[in-house]
Amino acid sequence: MGELGVREDVAVLIGDDGHIAAVAPYAELMTQAGEAAVQEVDGVLFPGFVDCHTHAVFGMARLDDHERRSRGAGYKEIAAAGGGILSSVRDVRQRSYDELVELTRHRLDRLLALGSTTVEVKSGYGLALEAELKQLEVIAAMAADGGPQVVPTFLGAHEVPQEYRPRADEYVELVIHEMLPAVERQGVARYCDVFCEPGVFTVDQSRRVLQAARRHGLRAKLHADELDPSGGAELAAELRAASADHLAAISEEGIAALAASETVAVLLPGTMMFLGQRRQAPGRRLIDAGAAVALATDFNPGSSPGMSLPLMATLAASQCGMAPAETITAITVNGAAAVGEAHTRGQIAPGFRADLVLAAVRDWRELVYWYGDNLVTEVWLGGRACHPRRWAVNFIV
Amino acid sequence: MGELGVREDVAVLIGDDGHIAAVAPYAELMTQAGEAAVQEVDGVLFPGFVDCHTHAVFGMARLDDHERRSRGAGYKEIAAAGGGILSSVRDVRQRSYDELVELTRHRLDRLLALGSTTVEVKSGYGLALEAELKQLEVIAAMAADGGPQVVPTFLGAHEVPQEYRPRADEYVELVIHEMLPAVERQGVARYCDVFCEPGVFTVDQSRRVLQAARRHGLRAKLHADELDPSGGAELAAELRAASADHLAAISEEGIAALAASETVAVLLPGTMMFLGQRRQAPGRRLIDAGAAVALATDFNPGSSPGMSLPLMATLAASQCGMAPAETITAITVNGAAAVGEAHTRGQIAPGFRADLVLAAVRDWRELVYWYGDNLVTEVWLGGRACHPRRWAVNFIV
Repeated sequence: MGELGVREDVAVLIGDDGHIAAVAPYAELMTQAGEAAVQEVDGVLFPGFVDCHTHAVFGMARLDDHERRSRGAGYKEIAAAGGGILSSVRDVRQRSYDELVELTRHRLDRLLALGSTTVEVKSGYGLALEAELKQLEVIAAMAADGGPQVVPTFLGAHEVPQEYRPRADEYVELVIHEMLPAVERQGVARYCDVFCEPGVFTVDQSRRVLQAARRHGLRAKLHADELDPSGGAELAAELRAASADHLAAISEEGIAALAASETVAVLLPGTMMFLGQRRQAPGRRLIDAGAAVALATDFNPGSSPGMSLPLMATLAASQCGMAPAETITAITVNGAAAVGEAHTRGQIAPGFRADLVLAAVRDWRELVYWYGDNLVTEVWLGGRACHPRRWAVNFIV
Repeated sequence: MGELGVREDVAVLIGDDGHIAAVAPYAELMTQAGEAAVQEVDGVLFPGFVDCHTHAVFGMARLDDHERRSRGAGYKEIAAAGGGILSSVRDVRQRSYDELVELTRHRLDRLLALGSTTVEVKSGYGLALEAELKQLEVIAAMAADGGPQVVPTFLGAHEVPQEYRPRADEYVELVIHEMLPAVERQGVARYCDVFCEPGVFTVDQSRRVLQAARRHGLRAKLHADELDPSGGAELAAELRAASADHLAAISEEGIAALAASETVAVLLPGTMMFLGQRRQAPGRRLIDAGAAVALATDFNPGSSPGMSLPLMATLAASQCGMAPAETITAITVNGAAAVGEAHTRGQIAPGFRADLVLAAVRDWRELVYWYGDNLVTEVWLGGRACHPRRWAVNFIV
C-alpha cells in the first residue's frame, strides 16, 4: 500500500472507448495521437478517487441532530427528540422519486467536484420494500446522469424500523423473504450490506441476511465493529465480503481475520471525528497485519455530512497512523477493490477506465497535506472532461 | 456566544467608504440605493471570517515531516531528521523577500476563497533580526495587495534558534533589546506573541518579552498550554493579552483566569487533529465559565496546513462541545476581538467594514455541518466583490 508508481513527464493516451490505451513518455505518445487531441495539464494527475461507502440518497440535512450532539446529546436523546436515522427514514419514505433524484444529483456533483469519480451508494433509509426500491432506483438514475459512476448497494438491514420494534427478527425475515427477492428481480443492486452492531443487528442476523443475499446474486459488505466489537470483522471475512466497514472497535481477532482474507477494511475517519469520538480505527495495525485498507467518506446526513476523500486521507494520516502514500492507495486502488472494480478503476494504467483527477499540486503528497480546501481543478470521467457542466457550487439541500 | 442575529429577506447597504451604512428590509433600502447598484444574492450572507492565528509567511511545505509523523515519529525524531520548525527557519532565512511575497500571496488567496477576509499573520520563522523584519515586511506587502486584510504579529520568540541553544535567556535578551526596538521603528507589527510551552519559552521569559513589547507599543498574544499546562493562560490574563491561543492543556486555574479577563481564548482544533492528538481544547468548559472563545486555523507548514475556518468550526462542534452558533461567533465576532477589531469587523451591522461572505447554503448551520468542501461562492472586501480576480485554485507551493 505504501508504494505508489509516481511518474513524471508522461502522457496518458485515452482510447475512443473511454479507457486508457497507454501511459508513456510524452514524445512517444505524440506519434500515436493527433496534435489537436492533446490537452496539456499542470499539476498532479491522480486516478479518479473511489468513495466506496456512502449513504448519498437522503432527504433533509439533519441540522438539529448536529446541534444537539454538539451540546452533548447521545444517540438516545437525539432519537427521543425526533431525530436520528429514523427521522431520515420518515423523510425518505415521504419524498417523491423526483425530489430524491434532484437532491442526490446535487450531492454527487459535489463529490465529483472533490475528485470522486466512482461512488458506492447504499439504500437503507427506506426500511420497507417500496421505499428501499425507490432509493435503489434513484441510484440507478444517477448511473445514467453523467455524474460519478455509482455502485448500488442494498442496505435494507440498516436499522430496525419503528413499526418492527422490538421485533427485529421479524424485520430480518422481511428483508430476506420480501426485499431481497424484489431487489434481485429489479436488478438494482450489486451489493448487500448490513449494520452489524450491538443494538442494531446481531452477528447471526447479519449472517442470515448476507447468506440470503448471496443466493440472490448480491455480494456482501458489512458495517462492522463501529463503536463496540461484536465479531463483525470476523463475520465479513467468513462470508468473503467485499468489505468490512467502520472498524473503530475491531478486535485483535478481527484484524487477524481481515488480514487473512480478501475482504477490504474500509475506514471512515470522518465519521468518528464528526461524532465527537476520540478514537479512530487502527489503520496502521490493519496494514501491518496485512489487511487491504480503503478510506471512504460515509457521506450521510447523520454521522458524516462530509464529501471529501482527500480530507479523509488527511484524517487517516494524522489519526490512523497511515503514511500519505497508503492513504492515496486507500482512496484509489483499494477503494476500487472494495466495490469489486480493482481491475477497472483506481489506477492510471492501460485497460483501466480513464477516470482522472487533476489537482493543483506539485508533489502528490500535498493532496493529503493541505487540508480542508478542494485542490481538484479538473476531473475526467471515461476520458471526458466534465469541468464545464459540473463545477459551480450547488446548494446541497 | 450562542445567539446569532439571523435575519431573513434583508438588504445590506454599503457606503462609498466600504463600510456598511444600513441593514434593513429590502424595500426600505431600495429607496436609498439606485437600482443599478443592487446586487441580489442567493444563499446565506455571513460577516467575513476572521482567522486570528496564522503563520502564513513560510517557504516550503514540510511534506517530509508530515510523512514521518504519520509513521509515528515525534517532535525530536523529526527535528533530528532535519525537519521541524527550525527547517522552516533555515528556509525563510535564505528566501528572498520577493519569493516570500509570491508564496504568501497565493496562500492568502486560498484563505480568502475559503471566506477569511481578515487574517492575522505572525512572523517567527526568522528568529534573527533581519529575517524577522523580512517576514513582517512581507506581511505589510500583503496589506496593500488586495487580498484579505492582514493583522501583523511579531513572533520573534517562536522558538530558540539553533545558534542560541542552549542559551535561551540570551536569545530572549536579543528579542527584547534588539528585535523589539527595530520592530517598533519599522512600524510593521501590531501584536507581539510568544510560544510559552515547556521546552520552548518559560512563563517568566514570556512575561519579560511581552512586557517589553508593551513598552514598544505592541499588545500581547500568547501561545499557551498547547500540550502541557504551564500557566500560559494565567499569564495571558495577567498581561491583559488580546488572546491566549491553543489551550488544549489548559488548567482549571487557566480557565478561571481567562473567564475573568478580556483575553480571548483562541482554539486551534485543526492543529490537534493534524498532529494526531486525541484531545482537544475544552471549548465547552471555557464558554460555560464565561470566556470568549475564538477559532483559528493556525495555518502553518508544520502542525496545521489547513486553511478553512468553516472546517475548524466543524471540528469545534464535534470535538470541543461547541454549539454551531458558538462556532460562528468564534470565527467572526470573537475572531475580530482577538485581533482588536471587535468594533470594525465580524458583524453585518452599520459602521462595520463591508467584509462579507456568501455561502451556498439555505440555513446558516449548514456551513458547520457539510464539511471538507468550500461552500463559499462570493467574498466582498470593503464592499468590493473579489470573485473575478481571486477565484482560480492556485498552486499553494
